[in-house]
Amino acid sequence: MATPQVTTRILRRLLASGVHGRAERLLARMAPADIAPLLSGLTREEIASVIDLLFRQRRAARVLRELPPEMLPEIFDAVNDERLAGVLHRLEIDDLLEMVEWIPEERRSAVVGRLPDAARAELEKAELYPESSAGRVMQTSFVSLDEKMTSQEAIDTLRARADDDESILYLYVIDEQRSLRGVVPIRRLVSAPPARLIRDLMIPDPVSVQPDADQEQVAQIVARYDLLAVPVTDVDGRMLGVITVDDVIDVITEEATEDMYHLAGLSEDDRVFSPAHIAVRKRLPWMLVNLATAFLAAWVVGLFERTLEQVVALAIFMPVVAGMGGNGGIQSLTVITRGIALGEIEFSSGLRAALKELAVGLVMGALTGTVAAGLAYLTVGVPAIGTALFLAMVVTMAAAGLMGAAVPLFLKAVRLDPALGAGVIVTTFTDVFAFFSFLGIATLLLDHLTG
Amino acid sequence: MATPQVTTRILRRLLASGVHGRAERLLARMAPADIAPLLSGLTREEIASVIDLLFRQRRAARVLRELPPEMLPEIFDAVNDERLAGVLHRLEIDDLLEMVEWIPEERRSAVVGRLPDAARAELEKAELYPESSAGRVMQTSFVSLDEKMTSQEAIDTLRARADDDESILYLYVIDEQRSLRGVVPIRRLVSAPPARLIRDLMIPDPVSVQPDADQEQVAQIVARYDLLAVPVTDVDGRMLGVITVDDVIDVITEEATEDMYHLAGLSEDDRVFSPAHIAVRKRLPWMLVNLATAFLAAWVVGLFERTLEQVVALAIFMPVVAGMGGNGGIQSLTVITRGIALGEIEFSSGLRAALKELAVGLVMGALTGTVAAGLAYLTVGVPAIGTALFLAMVVTMAAAGLMGAAVPLFLKAVRLDPALGAGVIVTTFTDVFAFFSFLGIATLLLDHLTG
Repeated sequence: MATPQVTTRILRRLLASGVHGRAERLLARMAPADIAPLLSGLTREEIASVIDLLFRQRRAARVLRELPPEMLPEIFDAVNDERLAGVLHRLEIDDLLEMVEWIPEERRSAVVGRLPDAARAELEKAELYPESSAGRVMQTSFVSLDEKMTSQEAIDTLRARADDDESILYLYVIDEQRSLRGVVPIRRLVSAPPARLIRDLMIPDPVSVQPDADQEQVAQIVARYDLLAVPVTDVDGRMLGVITVDDVIDVITEEATEDMYHLAGLSEDDRVFSPAHIAVRKRLPWMLVNLATAFLAAWVVGLFERTLEQVVALAIFMPVVAGMGGNGGIQSLTVITRGIALGEIEFSSGLRAALKELAVGLVMGALTGTVAAGLAYLTVGVPAIGTALFLAMVVTMAAAGLMGAAVPLFLKAVRLDPALGAGVIVTTFTDVFAFFSFLGIATLLLDHLTG
Repeated sequence: MATPQVTTRILRRLLASGVHGRAERLLARMAPADIAPLLSGLTREEIASVIDLLFRQRRAARVLRELPPEMLPEIFDAVNDERLAGVLHRLEIDDLLEMVEWIPEERRSAVVGRLPDAARAELEKAELYPESSAGRVMQTSFVSLDEKMTSQEAIDTLRARADDDESILYLYVIDEQRSLRGVVPIRRLVSAPPARLIRDLMIPDPVSVQPDADQEQVAQIVARYDLLAVPVTDVDGRMLGVITVDDVIDVITEEATEDMYHLAGLSEDDRVFSPAHIAVRKRLPWMLVNLATAFLAAWVVGLFERTLEQVVALAIFMPVVAGMGGNGGIQSLTVITRGIALGEIEFSSGLRAALKELAVGLVMGALTGTVAAGLAYLTVGVPAIGTALFLAMVVTMAAAGLMGAAVPLFLKAVRLDPALGAGVIVTTFTDVFAFFSFLGIATLLLDHLTG
């Protein structure tokens, strides 16, 4: 599994020379994960040639699996329906399902129609499970045993399987009704005496998940109990499939990306390599929401236009209150959102966490507010501006801490994504609160300010 | 592995009743990962009792492993040196190393001194590896084979091991110099004919990592090649240890948390359950940096005090330019930082990505700037304010996109954490740029504004 540093340039030259044999040998020596990045630099025709070469090596499907899904449409565009169906049908059902979703709608039925009947039937079944559910990430091939077998018979079963699938780590013991009775780690099987009964070897009542469970929840279970795979069973305990740890790693990575993206008001398919026009289209709706909230903040400032006319210096310190409040809010938001995602909230409680963030905001507001007020007094020499700045920072940062905690906890309580839009809500709130408190307090102190 | 819903309350009642037998049976039925959260609600004395009960079941170490490390000092505080050493010496070296770091300095040597000599020696060796390196997350126990063995002999070797460690998934083939020659997936061993030579069964030249490799890099390799474990070898190819996929999941989760935290200017040990005074101490330095940068923005506004005196309405729209610029900058920053972490930048390039963010910023600025200018004109009726707002939004958002991309790419290029402080740098820049461009352009248009 050596990973030669082969640049797209070398591959292009080999393809252009027409002697495809060398390009083929080059690709054969590389791991699928190392071939995938090369595709992004190729033209439509070159992609088609590479896919053909890989198809002959029966490795095209594995290379496609290693691509960020957002890149798939470009690749699919270079391959005809027949070839695409030929490549895709080699995939496990979970990967097939994901890829089919990235085929442009107008071609989808043509490609799916060319899949073998069995694959198509499985695909139709998998499509019934909800988005991001266990049913969609599970693979349906697994090794099943009978509890009355001996360990030698189990080993023979394994040997009889045509594929040498190294990802098989557990064997599943099922009864006549296909109900999951237990699980045998392959390592146990190896060490067991040949005549030992599977019934005595298996771990009974293993952890399992339902097909409609959210993939994030499945990932948490696997990470929590340090599993290598988790079986998926229906309500009657019948074994449906398996979710393996490599899929779980993908889910964990995906969910972390989703949280980060949602905090920033981004949608998941707006990636580094997405074309600019896609990025604009994806970001525009949230930016318009953000514009509306910015005008809300502007409107609050407008309420105090008369005060600002009297003391223009107030405009100078508006960014300080808003900036510090926004930052404090984002910090609380990040701690709570990540705490929810990691299940850390179990080690505290929502209420305790929110009160803590409130307290932290209060103290931080008092500390940084004192420094800010001092600096403001030194620069403009008006004690009342300093006073307003200090008071506004204390209340704004306390409110920012509370909101930063409360918004994701509330979103979670009503079963929404705790991160989705939370950043915009929290910073809008802190801006509005900052301007209202700072300019409001300043207005109340107006007599002193103008004195 | 059933997970009964046992609340801290029931456990406390059982402990208080003095009949520890029932509490012990209760704990025996629970998975370590489910016991861990209960500890956070207990008093010092109760924690000591639970650790004693778990110690008798030889499960205390496994429960400690499931705690967020930031909670360890509280737990350690309840246990004496002797008992703590007794618990810790059961851990794999990577876990031991991490836990020892959380023992308060004044007790550390006393506890470490009570560890068995072998464990102490290993610990001293592991401590020589850099922070967050492969050498610190690897475990040093693994099954090694000789290439001249038959597969039956290999199975016998495995059987002879006292532990029934189900995490053994690969066997490592090493020569007389302890150099790694190949790896045998346990699943291959099971299916192989008994007389088959290990030499013919093994995957030669497997992917391996060096002990000083960064743990994030190791996690990327495991995720990229869908491995279940990766061997760690020294410069001469000698086998030192193994990093397993469950540790890799922890690393991936940890690194994602680190990125999110660093973007928000938080330090990793400031968690949901951290006490408020710790949170304040951890956040204060960054908040003071942020205060300094906020004053920089204030200073820029101050430069235009005369303009603001003439047209107070400008103060109203300052938050719009700054808010939109800040948001755009954070979006670009998030896409690029996450793209770097996931290796997606491989599918594009730094320059291409930065130019794209610049273009996206430009277009978004033009689109939202048009809306903003229209709204501003409708509310204040001064065309020049609208013009200044439009132009400022175009240049600010373009600059925000460029900076959001350039800052993490630059930090990475100079081998710093791409996320660390990037949020503060980018938003400071966008604030300064927003105020400077908006008020600057407005000043140039002053004749029209006052007209």
